[in-house]
Amino acid sequence: MIYCQNLLSVPNAVFHAVVANSGNANACTGQQGELDSKKMASEVARHLDIKKEEVLVCSTGRIGEKLPMTRITTGIREASEDILDECDGARAFQEAILTSDTCTKSCSAKITTSRGEVTIGGVVKGAGMIEPNMATMLAFLTTDIQATNQELQEIVQHAVNQSFNRITIDGDMSTNDSVLLLANGASGIILSEESKTVQNNFSQAVIAICSCLAKKCVTDGEKVTKFVKIIVEDASDTDSALKVARSIANSLLVKSSWYGSDPNWGRIVDAAGYAKVGISFEKLSMHYNNTPVLNKGRPLISNKSVWKEIVSASEFSISLNLGMGKEKGEIWSNDLSEEYVNFNKSE
Amino acid sequence: MIYCQNLLSVPNAVFHAVVANSGNANACTGQQGELDSKKMASEVARHLDIKKEEVLVCSTGRIGEKLPMTRITTGIREASEDILDECDGARAFQEAILTSDTCTKSCSAKITTSRGEVTIGGVVKGAGMIEPNMATMLAFLTTDIQATNQELQEIVQHAVNQSFNRITIDGDMSTNDSVLLLANGASGIILSEESKTVQNNFSQAVIAICSCLAKKCVTDGEKVTKFVKIIVEDASDTDSALKVARSIANSLLVKSSWYGSDPNWGRIVDAAGYAKVGISFEKLSMHYNNTPVLNKGRPLISNKSVWKEIVSASEFSISLNLGMGKEKGEIWSNDLSEEYVNFNKSE
Repeated sequence: MIYCQNLLSVPNAVFHAVVANSGNANACTGQQGELDSKKMASEVARHLDIKKEEVLVCSTGRIGEKLPMTRITTGIREASEDILDECDGARAFQEAILTSDTCTKSCSAKITTSRGEVTIGGVVKGAGMIEPNMATMLAFLTTDIQATNQELQEIVQHAVNQSFNRITIDGDMSTNDSVLLLANGASGIILSEESKTVQNNFSQAVIAICSCLAKKCVTDGEKVTKFVKIIVEDASDTDSALKVARSIANSLLVKSSWYGSDPNWGRIVDAAGYAKVGISFEKLSMHYNNTPVLNKGRPLISNKSVWKEIVSASEFSISLNLGMGKEKGEIWSNDLSEEYVNFNKSE
Repeated sequence: MIYCQNLLSVPNAVFHAVVANSGNANACTGQQGELDSKKMASEVARHLDIKKEEVLVCSTGRIGEKLPMTRITTGIREASEDILDECDGARAFQEAILTSDTCTKSCSAKITTSRGEVTIGGVVKGAGMIEPNMATMLAFLTTDIQATNQELQEIVQHAVNQSFNRITIDGDMSTNDSVLLLANGASGIILSEESKTVQNNFSQAVIAICSCLAKKCVTDGEKVTKFVKIIVEDASDTDSALKVARSIANSLLVKSSWYGSDPNWGRIVDAAGYAKVGISFEKLSMHYNNTPVLNKGRPLISNKSVWKEIVSASEFSISLNLGMGKEKGEIWSNDLSEEYVNFNKSE
């Protein structure tokens, strides 16, 4: 990751290839790890006849073990041959980056401009907080628009804040999370020359793709049985809205109750409370999907059977209105299962 | 809790009784909840012929349900009769406050002064972060020394920071956590008239009791199989030391690996990293008990079988030296078992 960050920090840097390995994160591997990243880049560059500075390197998998470089360089040679033979490697790439994911995850969008269509595609491996056994989430987006590095960086940063940064599964962050957006300009359409509307549509499409991929990560999380959207409204500021939402999303008790389909609003209120943003229970309203649970601190017990039905589904939302202001925040999460603990108890 | 906080904020307030119920936390119960707390105090006061302001009220159990006041007032009458009959209720009290605890938890100490002995006793119910199904930790300490409210408050606050505030089990905080220290002066010994040494011994004894009770809470945690002490040394300040220790202690992945007796230092380093206090891996050293795991970022693989042996025990420590400064922090935690999730999936 640090290797890529250095390359990406060069103004107007151009990239022609991404090389990724799964099974080993090449993290906490010291100086040898840095040399191995460089070696991966230079091997790709040699085979494809490009510069080594034009190659981005991603690794995902176990932390603290050295890369098996003989296998890696063999793999790089074979993959390069396929590229030179013009094989369509999109599907193979999606599969190769998986670790404990149960399926490939991809998404694409097209937008129309005055001069024709622009396509954006994205693939992700849902690791990171979700598949922590193989600690990393890697997302790769490509588009045929032409844009500057700075334009792309701003668009992707904004999209990541609205999507990948809103998901939490077990609260564990990875050493290697990366989201890359590459533009090759093949459509002949130049972003800066398009209207504000088109520029905005392009940004929205990148957000939509990131959101779609992020949601696929959460639902494919290790031994997950439920997808839960937590929406905090009428907070005094966005930060406190997100703090409350994360506090709920990361509570073991709340997550365990989702797993058990128990509409336990007490645990949710407790977790919201220890986010310490000054909530008063008397102002708190809550919904499961569109069904009221609390109205300004008063539980609407007559809805109890509906609550149970909602939280028994594989997907539902929880909205919390703090009655403190006008800001909003949203976090996507999932339940905690016995199988998760069993799956992660050893590697 | 708010009811007690109000009473405790009165300067020189005197208390003659504590009334506690388990099974219901009387939290998020609105105005009725406040009236019920008052009623509990006034019932005790009526039976024992004391003032209602001299009664502290604690509740522990499920959040968001009204207290069953008929059963509560009957219980208060019966307990009051026992007190008037001078029954020794210490054991009965310890048992009555339990919720999902598997055993009673108590501890006592004596210190010698120029004028004789002082005794301090403590009992706890290990709820709160540990037994969240019945969300609360309640600790009660009593002593026969004479001291002012302010002296006692300072001593207990300091002790709680060194003990109860250092434990984390599932990261979930309770609505009702309380620690009370009551002094009746029966020994005739006045704290402020004793030497600095005696005063210090008294404070140390309160810390020792709180530490002993806190440890008992952690080991009696729901479906816990391991007690783990996390010591972070050579941090740039105490806050960052504690932040790193808590980050490790609350990581689901780390806790799952403890459960599986997997000496997975990579997950520990990852959790330490996302505490974001600026750790550099090259400066990081780590031990399981006294056995080196990492020496300035270099894993000591030859010790691997010893690591495994250590983390297979029911109690062990993890020391992390950040190599950044001179400050230290310690957190006590435990593992996360499949049984925990199963136990908490519904109430």
